[in-house]
Amino acid sequence: MPGIGRKTALRLTYHLLKQSRDQSRRLAESLLTLSERVKPCERCFNLTEDTLCAICRDPRRDQSQVCVVEEPSDIGAIERAGEFRGVYHVLGGRLAPLDGVGPENLNVVSLVDRAANGEVREVIVATNPSLEGEATAVYVQRELAGTSVSVTRIARGLPIGGDLEYADGASIAQALSARRAM
Amino acid sequence: MPGIGRKTALRLTYHLLKQSRDQSRRLAESLLTLSERVKPCERCFNLTEDTLCAICRDPRRDQSQVCVVEEPSDIGAIERAGEFRGVYHVLGGRLAPLDGVGPENLNVVSLVDRAANGEVREVIVATNPSLEGEATAVYVQRELAGTSVSVTRIARGLPIGGDLEYADGASIAQALSARRAM
Repeated sequence: MPGIGRKTALRLTYHLLKQSRDQSRRLAESLLTLSERVKPCERCFNLTEDTLCAICRDPRRDQSQVCVVEEPSDIGAIERAGEFRGVYHVLGGRLAPLDGVGPENLNVVSLVDRAANGEVREVIVATNPSLEGEATAVYVQRELAGTSVSVTRIARGLPIGGDLEYADGASIAQALSARRAM
Repeated sequence: MPGIGRKTALRLTYHLLKQSRDQSRRLAESLLTLSERVKPCERCFNLTEDTLCAICRDPRRDQSQVCVVEEPSDIGAIERAGEFRGVYHVLGGRLAPLDGVGPENLNVVSLVDRAANGEVREVIVATNPSLEGEATAVYVQRELAGTSVSVTRIARGLPIGGDLEYADGASIAQALSARRAM
């Protein structure tokens, strides 16, 4: 498991042995629940215990605006920012030919279906601003070219609150080339 | 001096005492040269030993594109990114009323003069993406409103190579609101 090596594993095991038997049983039950009950949302592939996730079911969310992310954890990051009122679509990864991840491994066909149903107005591609994330964004955009939705990409540049002096060259170059009229 | 406390100061002093007298003399001379010779460029307020700085004198630089920065150190950061071929204008700080820094402390009048001389086509405001940097950018833009130059602002959003999951909320919110058509 990530972040748990041999020593930590031993420490955790001893800790569990010291606890009451009931404690271990409840942890085991939670793990079973996790693997049995949590599954992808049928519409957006976010994690949920129901057919549709809490965001897809929320009537206050704008169903015409779909934000495309790589992983369910990215939804958490965007929700914490507290600005987005639309819904999501989880690709389940990014194009990575070297790791054997091709277009067939991503939830793109279902995205195109959603985009073609007439309810969606805009698809915001929020894959990571990394090399693979950018390639995935271009792929998603091409697949959506046949539909009538407008495809946008999140802005990349200098992080808010940052300092030009300590920013990396790639971000500065992007901040300059993507500058906007004030 | 920043980063040099009592212990480091003592260690440096002992080190100088161990070196030959010549070494200390050369350091002292360099410090005198620094304070006597290095002065602001008469056009852009970058640091230089001449009337004009190396960038202002360079005939290959595009004099019609002026990038406005807070400090001379910001020029170094943008030059290291290696994308910008225009020239600079150093404000000498940012608006910070709480620290007693007002418009009269910044090199803005000279910027408006440069912008009004007809040679400048675009002013790119590259003050830091912080609260004070943004306020300064708006101030610079207003001062330039009377001239015919186009005023642009560097892009702010997710840093290149970053990960949505670890980005701060303000940058994610900015990345979403400043999204662009693909």
